[in-house]
Amino acid sequence: MRLKLPSTCLILEIILMILFGTLVQYDHETDAKEWHEHLHNGSSNGHNDFYYRYPSFQDVHVMIFIGFGFLMTFLQRYGFSSVGFNFLIAAFSLQWATLMQGFFHGMHGGKIHIGVESMINADFCTGSVLISFGAVLGKTSPVQLLVMALFEVTLFAVNEFVLLTALGAKDAGGSMTIHTFGAYFGLVVTRVLYRPNLEKSKHKNCSVYHSDLFAMIGTIYLWMFWPSFNSAITAHGDDQHRTALNTYYSLAACTLSSYALSSLTAHDGKLDMVHIQNAALAGGVAAGTAGEMMLTPVGSMIVGFLAGIISVLGFKYLSPILESKLKIQDTCGVHNLHGMPGVLGAIVGAVTAAVATDDVYGEGMEDVFPQIANGDFTASVQGVRQAISLAVTLGIALLGGLIVGFILKLPIYGAPSDAICYEDSIYWEMPGEEPHHDNQLTAVRTEEGEKLNG
Amino acid sequence: MRLKLPSTCLILEIILMILFGTLVQYDHETDAKEWHEHLHNGSSNGHNDFYYRYPSFQDVHVMIFIGFGFLMTFLQRYGFSSVGFNFLIAAFSLQWATLMQGFFHGMHGGKIHIGVESMINADFCTGSVLISFGAVLGKTSPVQLLVMALFEVTLFAVNEFVLLTALGAKDAGGSMTIHTFGAYFGLVVTRVLYRPNLEKSKHKNCSVYHSDLFAMIGTIYLWMFWPSFNSAITAHGDDQHRTALNTYYSLAACTLSSYALSSLTAHDGKLDMVHIQNAALAGGVAAGTAGEMMLTPVGSMIVGFLAGIISVLGFKYLSPILESKLKIQDTCGVHNLHGMPGVLGAIVGAVTAAVATDDVYGEGMEDVFPQIANGDFTASVQGVRQAISLAVTLGIALLGGLIVGFILKLPIYGAPSDAICYEDSIYWEMPGEEPHHDNQLTAVRTEEGEKLNG
Amino acid sequence: MRLKLPSTCLILEIILMILFGTLVQYDHETDAKEWHEHLHNGSSNGHNDFYYRYPSFQDVHVMIFIGFGFLMTFLQRYGFSSVGFNFLIAAFSLQWATLMQGFFHGMHGGKIHIGVESMINADFCTGSVLISFGAVLGKTSPVQLLVMALFEVTLFAVNEFVLLTALGAKDAGGSMTIHTFGAYFGLVVTRVLYRPNLEKSKHKNCSVYHSDLFAMIGTIYLWMFWPSFNSAITAHGDDQHRTALNTYYSLAACTLSSYALSSLTAHDGKLDMVHIQNAALAGGVAAGTAGEMMLTPVGSMIVGFLAGIISVLGFKYLSPILESKLKIQDTCGVHNLHGMPGVLGAIVGAVTAAVATDDVYGEGMEDVFPQIANGDFTASVQGVRQAISLAVTLGIALLGGLIVGFILKLPIYGAPSDAICYEDSIYWEMPGEEPHHDNQLTAVRTEEGEKLNG
Repeated sequence: MRLKLPSTCLILEIILMILFGTLVQYDHETDAKEWHEHLHNGSSNGHNDFYYRYPSFQDVHVMIFIGFGFLMTFLQRYGFSSVGFNFLIAAFSLQWATLMQGFFHGMHGGKIHIGVESMINADFCTGSVLISFGAVLGKTSPVQLLVMALFEVTLFAVNEFVLLTALGAKDAGGSMTIHTFGAYFGLVVTRVLYRPNLEKSKHKNCSVYHSDLFAMIGTIYLWMFWPSFNSAITAHGDDQHRTALNTYYSLAACTLSSYALSSLTAHDGKLDMVHIQNAALAGGVAAGTAGEMMLTPVGSMIVGFLAGIISVLGFKYLSPILESKLKIQDTCGVHNLHGMPGVLGAIVGAVTAAVATDDVYGEGMEDVFPQIANGDFTASVQGVRQAISLAVTLGIALLGGLIVGFILKLPIYGAPSDAICYEDSIYWEMPGEEPHHDNQLTAVRTEEGEKLNG
Repeated sequence: MRLKLPSTCLILEIILMILFGTLVQYDHETDAKEWHEHLHNGSSNGHNDFYYRYPSFQDVHVMIFIGFGFLMTFLQRYGFSSVGFNFLIAAFSLQWATLMQGFFHGMHGGKIHIGVESMINADFCTGSVLISFGAVLGKTSPVQLLVMALFEVTLFAVNEFVLLTALGAKDAGGSMTIHTFGAYFGLVVTRVLYRPNLEKSKHKNCSVYHSDLFAMIGTIYLWMFWPSFNSAITAHGDDQHRTALNTYYSLAACTLSSYALSSLTAHDGKLDMVHIQNAALAGGVAAGTAGEMMLTPVGSMIVGFLAGIISVLGFKYLSPILESKLKIQDTCGVHNLHGMPGVLGAIVGAVTAAVATDDVYGEGMEDVFPQIANGDFTASVQGVRQAISLAVTLGIALLGGLIVGFILKLPIYGAPSDAICYEDSIYWEMPGEEPHHDNQLTAVRTEEGEKLNG
Repeated sequence: MRLKLPSTCLILEIILMILFGTLVQYDHETDAKEWHEHLHNGSSNGHNDFYYRYPSFQDVHVMIFIGFGFLMTFLQRYGFSSVGFNFLIAAFSLQWATLMQGFFHGMHGGKIHIGVESMINADFCTGSVLISFGAVLGKTSPVQLLVMALFEVTLFAVNEFVLLTALGAKDAGGSMTIHTFGAYFGLVVTRVLYRPNLEKSKHKNCSVYHSDLFAMIGTIYLWMFWPSFNSAITAHGDDQHRTALNTYYSLAACTLSSYALSSLTAHDGKLDMVHIQNAALAGGVAAGTAGEMMLTPVGSMIVGFLAGIISVLGFKYLSPILESKLKIQDTCGVHNLHGMPGVLGAIVGAVTAAVATDDVYGEGMEDVFPQIANGDFTASVQGVRQAISLAVTLGIALLGGLIVGFILKLPIYGAPSDAICYEDSIYWEMPGEEPHHDNQLTAVRTEEGEKLNG
């Protein structure tokens, strides 16, 4: 760690700066000269996309840095790393994503043009990396995470290009591109990095009271801002409005089914914080593709309702099997929050697309399904292409995860040994014990004494 | 709990889905076809109400889920339930409120039309339920809370209809409809549910150091976003702008008077976290009705200043009397934060309305007091109707709370016994104790050793 | 404390209300009559500045109250005071700043006109006071802090007037006016208040595990919303858009260099939370002046990259020297987060201004450098005036801090003695110890029992 982390960070950032210097420019809405030429030609400042997208961008930004960061603080002694490595790899990924996504859909005359929409897309791509981080949480060094991000962002951009440009699929909230991709990529990586003796760290792979409360900060922020996430890059007007509304009701329904299933599947009817922290969010994931479509309010609620059920059942019954039979050690249960609900969202999207009619969409078809509006596809073809997109995503995620997993297995990144996983103290200068020593010593001594006597 | 909570959640959600399926539609701004017909007729995407209201909606959303949720985490062992039940009943209430409010003021051709404004209103109604939750916090099971929400949302919608539609009152930030209603409803409910032996749980009805810091997250978010709350559904333009500004200064003045009174009323001059967490917010409550009016900046400050004083005095002197004499066990002191400041806000609103003149409002009278502008009412009549609205709100809240209190008293909801109130462990799987014993003891022992040696 | 704090708060608030009552009015966008006259003359509600600036305002507001407030909770037993005094002095400062800034640039016919832009400016000025608060954190009573705020806000407004109006400098994100001013003012104050025996409280001047996590809430919120901070009052259109984008990339690059340097400068390669909590933000400070200019994306990244390096090096090597040689006890290290990065930002701004050309800015020159566009200045003159502005800021901050430091040294404010610095319990009613002993022991005993039996 002494030199590996600093040199990795510095080299990556210097490469980023060189590439930005040679390739990246302001787009026509952020460039002083170009925007004022637009104004000259009759536009107005109020039409700058900043005012349509920046509030959504900020909500997405909160989800990436606070939402993901704090969601993972549930581990008792891995809070610094959860928030801190989330911060580091997100800060790297958003820069690298700007370049990778720019190569595929932001080039203008040999230059990548950037503005608020590319910022949102960069944050989206970062979200995918953070989902994979959830699968390997506690078992990887920061250098491994940066290397994983380097490759995953690249593959994300390839997959996104195939889906959105080559296949003409729609996936505004990223059920496929972000959630399914990030989850299955991460699951394969953690499979390749399988640690047979991980039970040595088992006593640290759990929460304590306040760490669960910190994690709830992450959960609630993700939940609240998911309507902004799914609607951040949909078309202006009814599309952004409808996507936010669909996601709002999907999440609300998901919350009730998550609580119901959490209590129902417990032997004593008690709620499990793991389910509440995660499954209640599955409704946002599952509305990621169809959210911009005319899913109807009740359709959104049904999707969320099912997503919550699937997610809790996954935590309860599937995760233990994945770990024991398939040797997939999925720290945060990303398969249950992002994997299965992402697949559900992709299927719902394919079906909803396949039944799109002019009668329902009117002239709005142009925004949601331009190829159907243009007569390039029928609705059925759009639906089939959505389904193919899911298959492509799974393929690239699984294959990519396999290769990257083996790259990450090289013994050069300072990965922690099995006995010191889920532990901040190997990466961070640790502060003193809590609470304040004078009080503490008395308290602990008393406890010891009473234990001996009691 | 084994089956009651799951079956309640599932049955409620299924009923919601059936009702949404038969009754709820996108409004003309979220529906693809209808919005594009608007565009066709000369509107533009930038005029979609999404861009005027969605940022405010998200701020309100944060207040409901983070603000209320974390404000109530001050109890030492009730953090999971505070955030978690807040989450559950809010997710239910916002769906149910969509229907109830829709019946009263969103019907179009037999269907309820929804969009960002109905989402804000649903969140507002949810806020009222959460205020009542504060009064009964720690003493009710989640099933009781869901049943309370079911009835309270219904009564909220009735009261709101009487005030805004039948009486023509103005109450954009809900001093009456949200705060006064929610507080007095909850106070009567907690009165009916009076527990004579609650002192058995008294040692848990208090905070610890970190639980107070978590609660400050809730406080500060409520404080910061209150300008958005009060302005979220006022008319576009100067109205939203002015309401936000009035609330900003009301809160700032309230903060200073809260700190002053908290220190002044303590025997040793020390500040009390309970006052800071709650009384400093009273300025937002008290600006809920008059905030959209031409209250003037100094008027707003005076209102906030008084609200802070009233609130601290309530916590210090009135709450103990309410508990000992009237048997009202008000866990969060909602009477001091929402009850009295809500009544103050209603009175300020009535007076401000009564003195409205064309000279001050100009053509803006149409937005704030359409009936005065139309000549239907004089300003005095508007003021009287505002005052009647307060009386109606108190009446419906008290009577409704009485009936719902008795419904909640039925011994079928699994309410906790007097000795295990304010305790998460009866509803939640609890994580291990904190900090982790093995590390902790070792660490402290080592430190002790070093101190002795050092 | 018994009477000093209440009387100070009440007297200040009453003075504020009197001054607001005589001097402050709604501006033409918040006043009902005036705005509707605008509408009458062809404007539309969508052009109200509320819709251009209010989302940015709310982000800035979060930075001031959550960002600064929680950033300072890193101290183990000073969390109540960090968040609570931050809350108090910010609520006072924003009101006082409305008046002071209004005197200098908001007067219309003898009245101060206010609206969303003045609210943002008031929050900005408050930010400067909170930076100074960081330097004296733990060593000053709340009365001292209010007196400091009273003078600092006044001097801030003078300095801002000299820079922006008299010198024609640009400083939208406040590298000079906010950060450099606040930091050096606070450093001189803490120098004057030097406590030779502060090591008596040394054991409390450090963090514990959860206090560092609370501090990360502050850090991440500051980091996320800094693009809104720097762009909140730039011109509409490309300017706001570009400033947000520049700040986003500056911060991302800064994060990587901060992590690299933190690990590199540690003897064992471990990361230091102090660096992550602070240095990773320096990129936002350093982009405060040039952020609105055509800095280019790579230019922003270089600035952020350097800011992170400077900041970590400052924490590691300069702060100990400042303390031992210059007797500057800088609790939060504001010199490293705000001081040096602020100066860097000012220099970058001067250089970027000096090389501005019509070829790059086009008609957008009018927004960024109106005096260059008008032909009043050449670009070089603008650059020189920017540099002079830095010198003026340093001069006013140092001289002002000196005077105010001596005012604060008067023994009338109830400052804590050297042995009880960094301690909440002298100002706050303290809750019980955590975790609650009775429960704890019972819980542990039960677990033990069950283990034995199970």
